[in-house]
Amino acid sequence: MIKVGIIGGAGYTGGELIRLLLNHPEAEISFVQSRSQAGKKLYSSHNDLLGETEMEFVPEWHSDLDVLFLCMGHGDSMKFMEANQVDDSVKIIDLAHDYRLDDSKVYGLPELNREATKSANFVANPGCFATAIELALLPLAHNGMLKEVHVSGTTGSTGAGVMPSDSTHFSWRNNNISTYKEFQHQHLAEIRKSLMQYQPWFENNINFVPYRGNFTRGILISAYQYCEWPLEEAVRVYKEYYDGHPFTWVTDSPLDVKQVVNTNKCFIHLQMHNGYLMVQSAIDNLLKGASGQAVQNMNLMFGLEETTGLKLKASAF
Amino acid sequence: MIKVGIIGGAGYTGGELIRLLLNHPEAEISFVQSRSQAGKKLYSSHNDLLGETEMEFVPEWHSDLDVLFLCMGHGDSMKFMEANQVDDSVKIIDLAHDYRLDDSKVYGLPELNREATKSANFVANPGCFATAIELALLPLAHNGMLKEVHVSGTTGSTGAGVMPSDSTHFSWRNNNISTYKEFQHQHLAEIRKSLMQYQPWFENNINFVPYRGNFTRGILISAYQYCEWPLEEAVRVYKEYYDGHPFTWVTDSPLDVKQVVNTNKCFIHLQMHNGYLMVQSAIDNLLKGASGQAVQNMNLMFGLEETTGLKLKASAF
Amino acid sequence: MIKVGIIGGAGYTGGELIRLLLNHPEAEISFVQSRSQAGKKLYSSHNDLLGETEMEFVPEWHSDLDVLFLCMGHGDSMKFMEANQVDDSVKIIDLAHDYRLDDSKVYGLPELNREATKSANFVANPGCFATAIELALLPLAHNGMLKEVHVSGTTGSTGAGVMPSDSTHFSWRNNNISTYKEFQHQHLAEIRKSLMQYQPWFENNINFVPYRGNFTRGILISAYQYCEWPLEEAVRVYKEYYDGHPFTWVTDSPLDVKQVVNTNKCFIHLQMHNGYLMVQSAIDNLLKGASGQAVQNMNLMFGLEETTGLKLKASAF
Amino acid sequence: MIKVGIIGGAGYTGGELIRLLLNHPEAEISFVQSRSQAGKKLYSSHNDLLGETEMEFVPEWHSDLDVLFLCMGHGDSMKFMEANQVDDSVKIIDLAHDYRLDDSKVYGLPELNREATKSANFVANPGCFATAIELALLPLAHNGMLKEVHVSGTTGSTGAGVMPSDSTHFSWRNNNISTYKEFQHQHLAEIRKSLMQYQPWFENNINFVPYRGNFTRGILISAYQYCEWPLEEAVRVYKEYYDGHPFTWVTDSPLDVKQVVNTNKCFIHLQMHNGYLMVQSAIDNLLKGASGQAVQNMNLMFGLEETTGLKLKASAF
Repeated sequence: MIKVGIIGGAGYTGGELIRLLLNHPEAEISFVQSRSQAGKKLYSSHNDLLGETEMEFVPEWHSDLDVLFLCMGHGDSMKFMEANQVDDSVKIIDLAHDYRLDDSKVYGLPELNREATKSANFVANPGCFATAIELALLPLAHNGMLKEVHVSGTTGSTGAGVMPSDSTHFSWRNNNISTYKEFQHQHLAEIRKSLMQYQPWFENNINFVPYRGNFTRGILISAYQYCEWPLEEAVRVYKEYYDGHPFTWVTDSPLDVKQVVNTNKCFIHLQMHNGYLMVQSAIDNLLKGASGQAVQNMNLMFGLEETTGLKLKASAF
Repeated sequence: MIKVGIIGGAGYTGGELIRLLLNHPEAEISFVQSRSQAGKKLYSSHNDLLGETEMEFVPEWHSDLDVLFLCMGHGDSMKFMEANQVDDSVKIIDLAHDYRLDDSKVYGLPELNREATKSANFVANPGCFATAIELALLPLAHNGMLKEVHVSGTTGSTGAGVMPSDSTHFSWRNNNISTYKEFQHQHLAEIRKSLMQYQPWFENNINFVPYRGNFTRGILISAYQYCEWPLEEAVRVYKEYYDGHPFTWVTDSPLDVKQVVNTNKCFIHLQMHNGYLMVQSAIDNLLKGASGQAVQNMNLMFGLEETTGLKLKASAF
Repeated sequence: MIKVGIIGGAGYTGGELIRLLLNHPEAEISFVQSRSQAGKKLYSSHNDLLGETEMEFVPEWHSDLDVLFLCMGHGDSMKFMEANQVDDSVKIIDLAHDYRLDDSKVYGLPELNREATKSANFVANPGCFATAIELALLPLAHNGMLKEVHVSGTTGSTGAGVMPSDSTHFSWRNNNISTYKEFQHQHLAEIRKSLMQYQPWFENNINFVPYRGNFTRGILISAYQYCEWPLEEAVRVYKEYYDGHPFTWVTDSPLDVKQVVNTNKCFIHLQMHNGYLMVQSAIDNLLKGASGQAVQNMNLMFGLEETTGLKLKASAF
Repeated sequence: MIKVGIIGGAGYTGGELIRLLLNHPEAEISFVQSRSQAGKKLYSSHNDLLGETEMEFVPEWHSDLDVLFLCMGHGDSMKFMEANQVDDSVKIIDLAHDYRLDDSKVYGLPELNREATKSANFVANPGCFATAIELALLPLAHNGMLKEVHVSGTTGSTGAGVMPSDSTHFSWRNNNISTYKEFQHQHLAEIRKSLMQYQPWFENNINFVPYRGNFTRGILISAYQYCEWPLEEAVRVYKEYYDGHPFTWVTDSPLDVKQVVNTNKCFIHLQMHNGYLMVQSAIDNLLKGASGQAVQNMNLMFGLEETTGLKLKASAF
């Protein structure tokens, strides 16, 4: 059994990780650290866990572990690494953005870096919008076909975290839609870096308009760029690229985000219009976009079947 | 024109009051006071008001006024009245719960106290759940028929105010339902007092289970008690009681809360089952349950037609 | 008083028109025709109207009228006009798409064709997405600055009408998002025609990805294209263009769709990124995008103040 | 491996059953019958299943099986049983209401009839509201303490099935709430029968006001009745009654429905007010209220650990 520690377990990604690991056949949770909830049952914060475990949050961590997940706020992972000495024998998976641009770490998108992840000691887990957009564009970059691209995408509210704020106030967000960080989303840097791993000369704009959706889970993005391929060729290339990747599927049917909610899957759908290839992708922002992908990376790092513990029932509705 | 001042105009009831008064043909807003927003445009907090007014929030109030609306948090109205001297010539309408049990003030439910309101100098505007439940039960009390009553009711999130909190976090509240303050809702006291105005010997339980709904506006309640009347008689009594009240209507059709959302109406629907008379009522918690009723009271206090400025288009969807 | 007839009054746009006209000070409804609901009270279909009117749907229409609104399904207006002889003295406002490309009719977007509308006998009322996109782009076209444009936009479910369908099934649509008619939305033709009224040589793509939102009312669109103007100049041009138009406002603040829901307003917000001018607009699809604009057109056709009967309280939440 | 057949696999309960069984370690799906979808992939109706299975719906069924699930509309199970000869060796689990009152079948609520289910050949799977209300009241009946009870409860829209209708139209249901079948819900008969299994002399009213919620999954009910027990005793009795039942848990914390959504759990919470014991319960209507409980019954009927294939990750948000 893989011994797991979790730092910052009271937030959304921490909770989701606990949910996954409690049912994971090859992993066991050693501790869940939380400064704010130390001494309380896990199910005091994550109420659905009643009946699953009597484990409590602890204030301190230890390194009698195989793998440590960092689930703190952005910026806090780096502080943690500077303040603490983690044994070399402990692998680390960081869910924050702190190390995603750091070339000494492996960027943990299995559809891009599966082999490198298998031998990695430190994996920087991708961002949620980054995962959706990269999976939509990687096959193009892989073929050197990437051009200026136009992306619109909508995210569920859980992407904004557990702290209440004006933009997650129910009275405001319900029945509403709005944009934020237009053309300047913080994931654009890791997206560009990942695409340039295949197509280093890529210098065009990635024009991205992110929307706040009035749903809780999921991301749907639509990206289009000029492409000389006929649609059939594009579909063939995409299916070939994702062949052997157990979570990412090219669908011939129209996409809606609930097809993948509460799963670790990414669905991709292609169309051709006005000379543009339009690629859509859908993920669950907390699973394939965060904690699910973190477990997928753990599986790879420990030589397990990639899907272990991740065959999740879609909520579908 | 009635000169109006608003204390605490940055919250939900203050905003709703501004929306109503800007279109009111017989009233004009003298000032909108807000400590937190002073110096900013009204539309900086209430964005929909762009194009309606260039008025700004002011830090201080004055009494060159005909009527003053108090739209602060519960408890702050009493503090305001203690700290300030309001001219006798200025009528006051308080939207908080501070004076609702005070016998020296008029409790401003027009369907109960219309005549008293017309000559009142200080009106305590009823609570939202209180309005819905009282309108469902007053005709029974009026006939001395009130017995132990069982009430379930669901409120929209705007009832919880503008400050973000755990129970108004979109990620929690969306697609969710829960109860709160079961059998102990703070409106029960004013409900009992209002019913006893007609039936002073009433001592039975008002058993009330309040639900938090995952919608923003509106309250739907279902109340039932034993009643010897056949349904037809009950309907007749209710229609007679509300005859001449322009906002409260007995409907023969099934009720849903969106029938009254964004209006000042209350719809009431009656059924008879198991020997119980079931009475349902629906209101918009911010209008008939707060600011709309406050304007209705203002109209009465100044001798205007009760519906002036309150013929609102239902949003319906 | 303007005598009004409505053909097809049981649907969403018909109902919204009734709600507006019942409160319109210069219009009175002569009849509301509906094949399916003839003989029933208006409030049997539009339940919120209880207490507003006892009027019934009628099976037939007559032409003792000043203006006739056609609120039927797309295609049925043309059938109606072919099968019926409407007196020349009766002005017609058609809410379907049947005549929007017909050069012999006036396309009723007041911000484009206000003067022509004043003397029109037949107005083709614009589509909802068309209204939002045209208002976002007209000032560019007016200055001959229109280039290839990239548009994403999300519409509420009421745009899909009253007939239940798979894509308006609550179990599917709730908490979901999806696209439809990508790059091929049926409003693109009227959008292009309207823009070419100012910039006849415009031949570039209007790339439009429409989304189905999980809300009921409203449209928010984001459009961007290359533009040499600095942002300040763009804002100046837009404010100048809409100066004197009482419903369309350029806002300096971030936009969300609930700022305009249940009003006849359009809010526009501008940003500049990557050399692109991004223009966002928000409307209520049933009001400025349908029945509200129809009443606005009626006001113009009968020499009334453009805002008569259209000073609506925003629902805001 | 248990060989499973499903009749009527294109609806909601059929789909949910497929989702569960595809991940069940001891069962394999032999066929999924559907008249309307025969010849199409399962993922053509249940889109989330892309990547899980290439199985197609079939038009006919066969009895080379261990267990047959009937997932048709109410009334069709009886027709199926009359028209077909099912081998005695094939166990049957019926998800419709057709046999729930039939004394020759086992009513499949494991918390009531676990032992009988283990040896049953035909199990009538309980209704969704029935499951929630029975689990809230069984410990009282078990102690002969049941009295007249007052129940309010709210169900998600999936309870109304896949066929679009007025009451599941998104434009109507979103942001709305309403009641239906007040005091007359069709599950009351099976609820009474189940409670009388413990307390045969029970003849009082079960007063039940069902609400349609604007969410998709889940049921939350609140039931109260007079009870002499102090709260601590009631909690003790409930915990004792459900001891050893792996899905039903008494929680000391406030309940909301998302704590159990997308799981097979039932959470129960107790309070005492006005001399009333209030019991709340929450389930997922499609899982513990339908297909999850059906699999739980299958596990019992085939001697498996009751939780096999049912350790589901809560969606939580």
